[in-house]
Amino acid sequence: MIVGAGFGGLFATKALKNAPVDVTLINGTAYHLFQPLLYQVATGILSEGEIAPPIREILKRQDNAKVLLGTVTEIDPEARTVTAVAPGTSYTVPYDSLIVAAGASQSYFGNDAFAEHAPGMKSIDDALELRGRIFGAFELAELETDPAAIERWLTFVVVGAGPTGVEMAGQIAELAHRHLPGQYRNIDPKHARIILIDALDTVLSSFGDHLSTKALRQLHTMGVEVELGTKVVDVDETGIEVETRNGRQRIESMTKIWAAGVAAPSLSTQLAKATGASTDRAGRLEVEPDCTVPGHPEIFAIGDMMSLNRLPGVAQVAIQSGRHAAGQIKKRLAGEATGQPFKYFDKGSMATISRFSAVASVGKLHFSGIVGWLMWLAVHLLYLVGFKNRVTAVLHWFVSFIGRGRSERVATFQQVFARRALQEYRQHLP
Amino acid sequence: MIVGAGFGGLFATKALKNAPVDVTLINGTAYHLFQPLLYQVATGILSEGEIAPPIREILKRQDNAKVLLGTVTEIDPEARTVTAVAPGTSYTVPYDSLIVAAGASQSYFGNDAFAEHAPGMKSIDDALELRGRIFGAFELAELETDPAAIERWLTFVVVGAGPTGVEMAGQIAELAHRHLPGQYRNIDPKHARIILIDALDTVLSSFGDHLSTKALRQLHTMGVEVELGTKVVDVDETGIEVETRNGRQRIESMTKIWAAGVAAPSLSTQLAKATGASTDRAGRLEVEPDCTVPGHPEIFAIGDMMSLNRLPGVAQVAIQSGRHAAGQIKKRLAGEATGQPFKYFDKGSMATISRFSAVASVGKLHFSGIVGWLMWLAVHLLYLVGFKNRVTAVLHWFVSFIGRGRSERVATFQQVFARRALQEYRQHLP
Repeated sequence: MIVGAGFGGLFATKALKNAPVDVTLINGTAYHLFQPLLYQVATGILSEGEIAPPIREILKRQDNAKVLLGTVTEIDPEARTVTAVAPGTSYTVPYDSLIVAAGASQSYFGNDAFAEHAPGMKSIDDALELRGRIFGAFELAELETDPAAIERWLTFVVVGAGPTGVEMAGQIAELAHRHLPGQYRNIDPKHARIILIDALDTVLSSFGDHLSTKALRQLHTMGVEVELGTKVVDVDETGIEVETRNGRQRIESMTKIWAAGVAAPSLSTQLAKATGASTDRAGRLEVEPDCTVPGHPEIFAIGDMMSLNRLPGVAQVAIQSGRHAAGQIKKRLAGEATGQPFKYFDKGSMATISRFSAVASVGKLHFSGIVGWLMWLAVHLLYLVGFKNRVTAVLHWFVSFIGRGRSERVATFQQVFARRALQEYRQHLP
Repeated sequence: MIVGAGFGGLFATKALKNAPVDVTLINGTAYHLFQPLLYQVATGILSEGEIAPPIREILKRQDNAKVLLGTVTEIDPEARTVTAVAPGTSYTVPYDSLIVAAGASQSYFGNDAFAEHAPGMKSIDDALELRGRIFGAFELAELETDPAAIERWLTFVVVGAGPTGVEMAGQIAELAHRHLPGQYRNIDPKHARIILIDALDTVLSSFGDHLSTKALRQLHTMGVEVELGTKVVDVDETGIEVETRNGRQRIESMTKIWAAGVAAPSLSTQLAKATGASTDRAGRLEVEPDCTVPGHPEIFAIGDMMSLNRLPGVAQVAIQSGRHAAGQIKKRLAGEATGQPFKYFDKGSMATISRFSAVASVGKLHFSGIVGWLMWLAVHLLYLVGFKNRVTAVLHWFVSFIGRGRSERVATFQQVFARRALQEYRQHLP
């Protein structure tokens, strides 16, 4: 039984392809999500289908794998069952071995009320919501006559200067300064302000000083205002309050994007309670060196859900720990010794800042500019090619990087109006 | 002032490109919608961006055109102003000449309660809603163990055997019988039933007997059950009640699609009241032969909003009447005589039934099978090529027609859960 079809769960499933097992993969959506490209859906480069291939299409030829739609709400380690809900139904299924790979959700560091005004970047819903807000901001600015209101619509604040925040800020800057000019008659998108905020003193702090500095310089060149050592104190509909070295300050902005923290999902807390395992500050399960939950050699927690050796929450950790868990299960079935510790091989990290410019760190090597960007392109092409039909993504990149178009700009009425309705609706619930 | 950026409004705007006028184009969404391909978004072939290019990108180089986001709620023919609402705002703008091209909305023939259980096919929201329901039906069937429940999930009912209904039924059949098999472990998508219902005795009745018969035969070959002379009496969550020659009958089905009637939008009623114009049974404005509203030579009603010579509600009528209205305005400004009647040139009609098979009627000529399909492809390519970036649509077609993939299958959580929330929310409103 594998819970979650993100990088960890999907690669664990694939690693069990020729093993003498029946794999059941449960996921809350029918698709695998290529999360590192969510910002491209939010900024109109790719369609949601291009980064979210159907899980059962990926596993079509893996006869020992069954895919079930469902959000797992409870794991019972004694009965060895998993309970999940799907629209209009719920079900419980038994397991022999369990790999829990439910990923991470957005964290607002205790200020969950911020979510309404500053959506995160974790799901397709988030990306489409942000797409509607970003393009909608320019549409609504065009309708305004009051200069202060126009400025408020044309000010975009991105919170968090990790890879997601940097990529998002860079793409909004490209959108405003390169793609949209010439399409409006009342406003000039070139006047848009893009502000990137982080509590730390560097951008991309995990990339090391050299690349941080390069990235910061590139962001400045693109017209992104970077405010470091700046903490978010409050977020509301029309702006954001921050605490800087010079005191408290308010930024008027209709569009705020939260790319700051991650937290383990509620399933992690439930599993910890049920097994007596500890969790770290972010709510992740503290696992044994072999990724199993203490006292339960049949339960693995992997990827963003596990707390182990301070490993970062990146795709490669999820993929490799998923493969490790699958390997351990295969060994046990073959009667071989198990319990080998998970060893992470750091393949490096990378972030695009604009077209033709990225930073990448591989071991002790650092790349930036066009070289870094070509590496980014190669890695992402290589990954996407693993799924059929991703050819159109390449075409959309071509159109977006070479030309001036952004072809995926649709926001539905539902996105525009449903969020508020849902909020008000919740207030009416008992 | 042009209200609506569908085929009529967009082509009227383009026809005024070199005229000495300032054009303001108001539309409820930021995109032009290529409605004839909505069924391809609903069935996972195309992304929504591919059939909905941003209006302001299309008109980027037309300096005399300004695009405003807004749903027009009122036209005041005395003050010569138009009032529109956009999220969080509303505004009123004056006009000298007005072209009203607000299209048509779905009609449930007085049974608006059907809409909840049988969404229509008029907007991107509709198409994405249906996409979520169609692919979701297979996901939820896979979770069921009760054979009756599985059958209910795998029965799809399409109401209305015009081009939209025929294309929709054909695509669901292709999906179930060709694309999805092999991806499920509990169910066999090949067992899905696709039922096409119409109150008339033929499919594609406007295409003539010869093509109707060919289309019917092709639908049968594809495994679509066609129930003609069958009226819908009731629709609920789990099924649909119909009245046939043999009496009343219930079809158990979770997924119903309404492709039956159209009605003029509420704006048509408002304008009729304000100008004293008459409307026909479908609520369309009865216009003068030159497409103007009686007594108001400065107001044109075109496309699906006008009732004139029993013209059909097709894209070509909208395009040609839009160009006619623009031509009349240009003549008036040049001091030439106006009032020439609108002459519709019927370029023919076509509908795809499956890949490689379509029916097309051009004047007295009839085409079907692969010849009809190649004509369909040529016409749609020609049209889409008019917009940049539509290259990916061609690729998606290639993938879908030649291969077995359907790459755009994403449904958001919002689509799955928001509809019900919105409905319950409305009940709480005063």
